[in-house]
Amino acid sequence: MLQIHASRWFNTQEPVSLADLRGRVVAVHTFQMLCPGCVLHGLPQATKLHQTFSQEQLAVVGLHTVFEHHSVMGADALEAFIHEYRLRFPIGIDEADDDGPIPKTMKAWGLQGTPSLILIDKEGRTRLKHFGQIDDMALGAVVGGLIGEPGA
Amino acid sequence: MLQIHASRWFNTQEPVSLADLRGRVVAVHTFQMLCPGCVLHGLPQATKLHQTFSQEQLAVVGLHTVFEHHSVMGADALEAFIHEYRLRFPIGIDEADDDGPIPKTMKAWGLQGTPSLILIDKEGRTRLKHFGQIDDMALGAVVGGLIGEPGA
Amino acid sequence: MLQIHASRWFNTQEPVSLADLRGRVVAVHTFQMLCPGCVLHGLPQATKLHQTFSQEQLAVVGLHTVFEHHSVMGADALEAFIHEYRLRFPIGIDEADDDGPIPKTMKAWGLQGTPSLILIDKEGRTRLKHFGQIDDMALGAVVGGLIGEPGA
Amino acid sequence: MLQIHASRWFNTQEPVSLADLRGRVVAVHTFQMLCPGCVLHGLPQATKLHQTFSQEQLAVVGLHTVFEHHSVMGADALEAFIHEYRLRFPIGIDEADDDGPIPKTMKAWGLQGTPSLILIDKEGRTRLKHFGQIDDMALGAVVGGLIGEPGA
Repeated sequence: MLQIHASRWFNTQEPVSLADLRGRVVAVHTFQMLCPGCVLHGLPQATKLHQTFSQEQLAVVGLHTVFEHHSVMGADALEAFIHEYRLRFPIGIDEADDDGPIPKTMKAWGLQGTPSLILIDKEGRTRLKHFGQIDDMALGAVVGGLIGEPGA
Repeated sequence: MLQIHASRWFNTQEPVSLADLRGRVVAVHTFQMLCPGCVLHGLPQATKLHQTFSQEQLAVVGLHTVFEHHSVMGADALEAFIHEYRLRFPIGIDEADDDGPIPKTMKAWGLQGTPSLILIDKEGRTRLKHFGQIDDMALGAVVGGLIGEPGA
Repeated sequence: MLQIHASRWFNTQEPVSLADLRGRVVAVHTFQMLCPGCVLHGLPQATKLHQTFSQEQLAVVGLHTVFEHHSVMGADALEAFIHEYRLRFPIGIDEADDDGPIPKTMKAWGLQGTPSLILIDKEGRTRLKHFGQIDDMALGAVVGGLIGEPGA
Repeated sequence: MLQIHASRWFNTQEPVSLADLRGRVVAVHTFQMLCPGCVLHGLPQATKLHQTFSQEQLAVVGLHTVFEHHSVMGADALEAFIHEYRLRFPIGIDEADDDGPIPKTMKAWGLQGTPSLILIDKEGRTRLKHFGQIDDMALGAVVGGLIGEPGA
């Protein structure tokens, strides 16, 4: 089962644990604050997911998976970014890996780049792992289907 | 159970019967060809539904519910409109009613105006009846949920 | 010098004469009410021209140049269309030609199709004749340049 | 006459001097890389100005006027931003002021915030100083008018 390795969290008092979210559908949106596709499409869509579905139906989680320009996308820069873009859902910082530029969660989950969207069902199984843009209606359909599934 | 009263059909060899569609989710998009909200938002969204979901998952049906400007929205005008806007899903003409300007299906279903969207589940039950614009992600979620339901 | 051959006018008490508009910049937007490119792009842009510039700076004139589906784009249909789309600038109906489906003004001006935009300067000279879409910023630049030219 | 106080330049081999640009129309777009209105509207519009007009007609100049979150919007962060967003026009960094958070050019020009757009005519006079969003057509009209003016 997927696990998030985060060195720090914003917009939440407790670290987000996917195990604790079992029983709910989860959307993990991974991004970099200097990635145009994330800023123009991915994050607005994550915000829309957060506004369209109730917290009980869908947990939206952001993850800052920095794999380039590390020196200018640190925690302080991200904090200012989250403040200016008024992002409201929990956002973690993917933990740096000693072995190279790819952070731990991104590496463990086999993500190709940013933005990536991962949908996890109520049983904790990964049901979608999408790199790049995805249409609102198609995404809504997948999320709506997962929410309709019987829980554990 | 809902029934469509149509005097003529386009884009289909046989009249569309909701009874025959039992077992599939159905989206009925009602519109008028001279209604700006239908042309700018409703019909593009109906086309997107038609392209996003397979025919087995969702049947998209258009219905021309003319309740004003009757003389300039007849069958010939609609045929040219369908041709120019390259609409591909079945579209019926709601049957005129002798008692007034509101056509029969629109009256029987209690629709308030155009565009209206009606979602019918696999059991033939009406699950959404929406007048005006609706967001792509929210609509996708409802349709995705209905598709996921067990059939009859 | 260009001349409009119109069989009827809407949104104006007097027929529009390009000769009378000498001294002002004029934008003539030609369209068909069943042409998707006109409805989705051309007419909204003509409306924006009408709202962005003052009447003294720019006269916006619409012309319904019907060259196909004549039977369903008559004067009554156009009147309902203008009403529903809330078009406010003067709109003429290009006069039918006995020799074929292309109406008189469209033929005389050598227009290729709809939408077409014709810009006429203060001296009555044609400065732009564009078939298809044109970008707002580029169009604004041409109009702004023409308005800045010294008049007759 | 306006003067740019820049501590560093990108996308140009020589510092940009407004005096040297006399004879051409100049658009100075001031922004901050963490300002959503700049990223979503201002910078795409500056890029469009740069693509719509020739270099001889219009010089587009960016200016990074950082007045908040200074520590995370330094030169290195801006360089990565310019690279990722593929900005091609010359961009300067407004020089820090010892007296407070507002940088020198922003202070001297009396700018209210970001994004701001300043249009300078061929004679070096300021003709527009706009804070916030501005419509493409309206902006095109002003620029087109200035380009049409006789030079010095």
